[in-house]
Amino acid sequence: MQKPLEELNASAQGDFVAALANIFEYSPWVAEQAFAARPFAGVNALFAAMKTAVERAPEGLRLALIKSHPDLADKTQRAAGLTAESSAEQNSVGLDRLSDAEYEAFERVNNAYRSKFGFPYIVCVRRHTKDSILSNFEQRLPNDVATETATSLAEICRIAALRLDQLVISSDRLPVYGRLSTHVLDNNSGKPAEGITVELIERSALGASRVIARAVTNSDGRTDQPLIGGRPVPIGRYELIFSVGSYFKERNVPLSDPPFLDDIALRFAVSDPEGHLHVPLLVTPWSYATYRGS
Amino acid sequence: MQKPLEELNASAQGDFVAALANIFEYSPWVAEQAFAARPFAGVNALFAAMKTAVERAPEGLRLALIKSHPDLADKTQRAAGLTAESSAEQNSVGLDRLSDAEYEAFERVNNAYRSKFGFPYIVCVRRHTKDSILSNFEQRLPNDVATETATSLAEICRIAALRLDQLVISSDRLPVYGRLSTHVLDNNSGKPAEGITVELIERSALGASRVIARAVTNSDGRTDQPLIGGRPVPIGRYELIFSVGSYFKERNVPLSDPPFLDDIALRFAVSDPEGHLHVPLLVTPWSYATYRGS
Amino acid sequence: MQKPLEELNASAQGDFVAALANIFEYSPWVAEQAFAARPFAGVNALFAAMKTAVERAPEGLRLALIKSHPDLADKTQRAAGLTAESSAEQNSVGLDRLSDAEYEAFERVNNAYRSKFGFPYIVCVRRHTKDSILSNFEQRLPNDVATETATSLAEICRIAALRLDQLVISSDRLPVYGRLSTHVLDNNSGKPAEGITVELIERSALGASRVIARAVTNSDGRTDQPLIGGRPVPIGRYELIFSVGSYFKERNVPLSDPPFLDDIALRFAVSDPEGHLHVPLLVTPWSYATYRGS
Amino acid sequence: MQKPLEELNASAQGDFVAALANIFEYSPWVAEQAFAARPFAGVNALFAAMKTAVERAPEGLRLALIKSHPDLADKTQRAAGLTAESSAEQNSVGLDRLSDAEYEAFERVNNAYRSKFGFPYIVCVRRHTKDSILSNFEQRLPNDVATETATSLAEICRIAALRLDQLVISSDRLPVYGRLSTHVLDNNSGKPAEGITVELIERSALGASRVIARAVTNSDGRTDQPLIGGRPVPIGRYELIFSVGSYFKERNVPLSDPPFLDDIALRFAVSDPEGHLHVPLLVTPWSYATYRGS
Repeated sequence: MQKPLEELNASAQGDFVAALANIFEYSPWVAEQAFAARPFAGVNALFAAMKTAVERAPEGLRLALIKSHPDLADKTQRAAGLTAESSAEQNSVGLDRLSDAEYEAFERVNNAYRSKFGFPYIVCVRRHTKDSILSNFEQRLPNDVATETATSLAEICRIAALRLDQLVISSDRLPVYGRLSTHVLDNNSGKPAEGITVELIERSALGASRVIARAVTNSDGRTDQPLIGGRPVPIGRYELIFSVGSYFKERNVPLSDPPFLDDIALRFAVSDPEGHLHVPLLVTPWSYATYRGS
Repeated sequence: MQKPLEELNASAQGDFVAALANIFEYSPWVAEQAFAARPFAGVNALFAAMKTAVERAPEGLRLALIKSHPDLADKTQRAAGLTAESSAEQNSVGLDRLSDAEYEAFERVNNAYRSKFGFPYIVCVRRHTKDSILSNFEQRLPNDVATETATSLAEICRIAALRLDQLVISSDRLPVYGRLSTHVLDNNSGKPAEGITVELIERSALGASRVIARAVTNSDGRTDQPLIGGRPVPIGRYELIFSVGSYFKERNVPLSDPPFLDDIALRFAVSDPEGHLHVPLLVTPWSYATYRGS
Repeated sequence: MQKPLEELNASAQGDFVAALANIFEYSPWVAEQAFAARPFAGVNALFAAMKTAVERAPEGLRLALIKSHPDLADKTQRAAGLTAESSAEQNSVGLDRLSDAEYEAFERVNNAYRSKFGFPYIVCVRRHTKDSILSNFEQRLPNDVATETATSLAEICRIAALRLDQLVISSDRLPVYGRLSTHVLDNNSGKPAEGITVELIERSALGASRVIARAVTNSDGRTDQPLIGGRPVPIGRYELIFSVGSYFKERNVPLSDPPFLDDIALRFAVSDPEGHLHVPLLVTPWSYATYRGS
Repeated sequence: MQKPLEELNASAQGDFVAALANIFEYSPWVAEQAFAARPFAGVNALFAAMKTAVERAPEGLRLALIKSHPDLADKTQRAAGLTAESSAEQNSVGLDRLSDAEYEAFERVNNAYRSKFGFPYIVCVRRHTKDSILSNFEQRLPNDVATETATSLAEICRIAALRLDQLVISSDRLPVYGRLSTHVLDNNSGKPAEGITVELIERSALGASRVIARAVTNSDGRTDQPLIGGRPVPIGRYELIFSVGSYFKERNVPLSDPPFLDDIALRFAVSDPEGHLHVPLLVTPWSYATYRGS
């Protein structure tokens, strides 16, 4: 149920607040504060007004905002009901289908964090893989309360920006999307490599690695759609698998038996979810190269 | 118990044949035939004489030589006792410690082959990985008996050459060794990369992949010893893993978090067990390349 | 003086023919023939009609069309006056400012060709460098008259297509343009290389090589405009020079003295004037690579 | 006329000094001082003794040693006669066959240096190209006298080490040699590229660039001899030219016309005359790469 910005600009306060009540989890007061700044020229202006409301709120209210967030992957809370937004976010990263080992890891993290800081471990999960959510925790646990209060509010703002991006239709866009793309160049024929199967695997230290995208290169050596696009590219470790053995075999290029190169695996990490990351493959039957492109 | 060639050249026929009785499995007649050609200028001359004896033997004797070979990985025959040579060869490729699935695969292969051709499936196992032994079977099963008789004798000669190489000390060497090596060049500093951990993994479709060599690069960016040397490089699929993330981190090179490149995996296949295969890595924190070198 | 296609479609025959009289050199009859096919949906349809007129013309008229073309770089004919189109075309490739050696080479070519075939050597010069015009001659001289008649008419059609493209404004375009572009990726920082000076040199065997484009890479590592665009990329030999030494020096990257890499020269040839040719540079202070991209 | 170290060790003082009189230009006193330290275990020990003699000499004597050196490329001094060693050294870098412009540049350098410091501009010319001798001057001219006195003595010791290396036969060697080598790998066939013509050009800003080595790659893709070896690799700018177009054409590899890659030029600089510099080429008809190897 997306809403045009014009409609929000024209709404009465009650409707405005109702529409934006959960942009910040269980905190309609943020929308109430932002209402005064109407009309908004774009979604960036609306988001800025809401962020300002959070920044200017009394400390107690900000802490309540933090505490109103659920634990990650907590079964009891899930049973009791999350906001629809929280639920969708957690599911997107797979927190609704954890293995036992993963579940225990998240429970340990939640408890350790809450017992040290007195509020839940909050991270904008759409910007992370499961492994990254856990390693992010390891980095943050040694911090002091002031640092973690600020970090939590920053993460809450990232969550809010993504929620607002999905809700509001505007001519401008919030800068919340990244892109992961690839390109295969056949240096044997001097042409883009068409028809190469590409698999994108999310690698996991804790659980099983899993294929998260699959595509075939087109006549330009690219995939018709980016491997990840229209959303943040989750921080984490990945592997791209390119089926070059069958590609060259089908073109009758002389190969050894078995072919020196068959499935090529490029392992890399994503560190900037809103960036454009291009991971190309330059390949012959006897050599290949890759680099971080943009 | 290695023997100098001079000692064999000076031996009485009985001692000569006893020493070489199992170069060709359970077939002392090959050594008996070769004895007449003494003295041998080198181990290549000795091997040529033995090979000639096989080629000139009556067809029935050659078939008996084929049939005197054991099945691969056959538990009953292993219990009854193999020649020491056969046992060592089979163990070298792991046929003495198969998983149930692998054992069943080999049993299926042995039976299918023997029921079609009337003699055991023979392959020089030191030149193969387990996967390659099985795919070699798939390639050979459609052949006719004449082709497989010739192929079996050729494999038997390869087995014999390796056995002879291990037994006889001579100033010349039989051309039965290959080499697999690597080299890491740090294109960020323009120098060989020292201190990179390299793991060589034998990849298996049937069973588990396993680490078969581990080394650290020296000041020349190479490993002190070849990853595989002093023996055939088994035909099969491999993966080299290079720990470049920690290498650059220790040198305080600016990296993303997590680093764009951490463990780099180069997958390749070996097709020529007696060849020299060099698989180098040219690397920066943001790019890498490899090629089939020599 | 460009003309909208609509205006041509609405013209009386006299105006139509006058406007298109020299699309085919001194041959208004081509436009006269094409006039009947009005109105034209686009410039491609107009060109097709003119080409059909040439193809259906009597052999004598087609030969007259060939003979109405001037010699290349002929001083007497230049003094006597060329069509404005011929003059601009010849000047574009530098035929109006030849060295003595070049002038003699062209005179030799014209005479040899004309004395064998009885008509002038015709080539669409906008698709060639001077060197390529001469090597094209070497390839064509051994042909027979029938082949060269056909080749000349094909070149005349290429000339006409470019003239028509420049004259007529239409929503569609004739496929007469190519593009040459570059891209510099700094594999030391993992980012596009901004601020690299790039020079494109046309290499010549006969005369002096000359710089034909100069640009500086932008924040995307590309040049704001293609090195060659909006016209055919002339067949010939080129060199791109990238000033990478100063680039790395300004960024305080540790270098040797003198720097291992300073000006990098990539030499390549263009063979397809209407194609998109991309010649990128992947570079660190100690390594570089290029490939034919698209 | 080389001398075994044993012979020097066994010589009377007069013969010893006579043999080593010009290791340090016109300064037999250095050999006289070193004589006491006999016998020498190797040429490194002998050189160390001579160097110690210079370091311990009174300041006046050291200054006299500096002043006993000739100007570089000075015609008057050449006519009057240099030591055979100086003459050979200067000729090796081409100082006996300068163009007028080069001659004037050297004359300017000599005069500017001598008028500032009161002694000649000394540089170990075997470690430099002509361009590098001049740029070295530009770097040194701003120095103070103390710095240049020390620098001159260091250069004199480098000259002496090279002279001693050529004179004395010993089981050990002075570390005065470098090496420049190349290697061509054909990534189209996955094999070393045999039969590629390689030219090494010394690039000059002042005078004409010139070919200083020419070789053809062997079956290992290397040249039989290093491009430069058995001497220092002169500091300077170079270009390697590889004839890859004809290589691929002869092997019937599909190419464009003209071929995308024909003569490939790798430009690089040498900064460490005693180092091992390897500049390989990895190439297909559509791509190539190089890096600083060792």
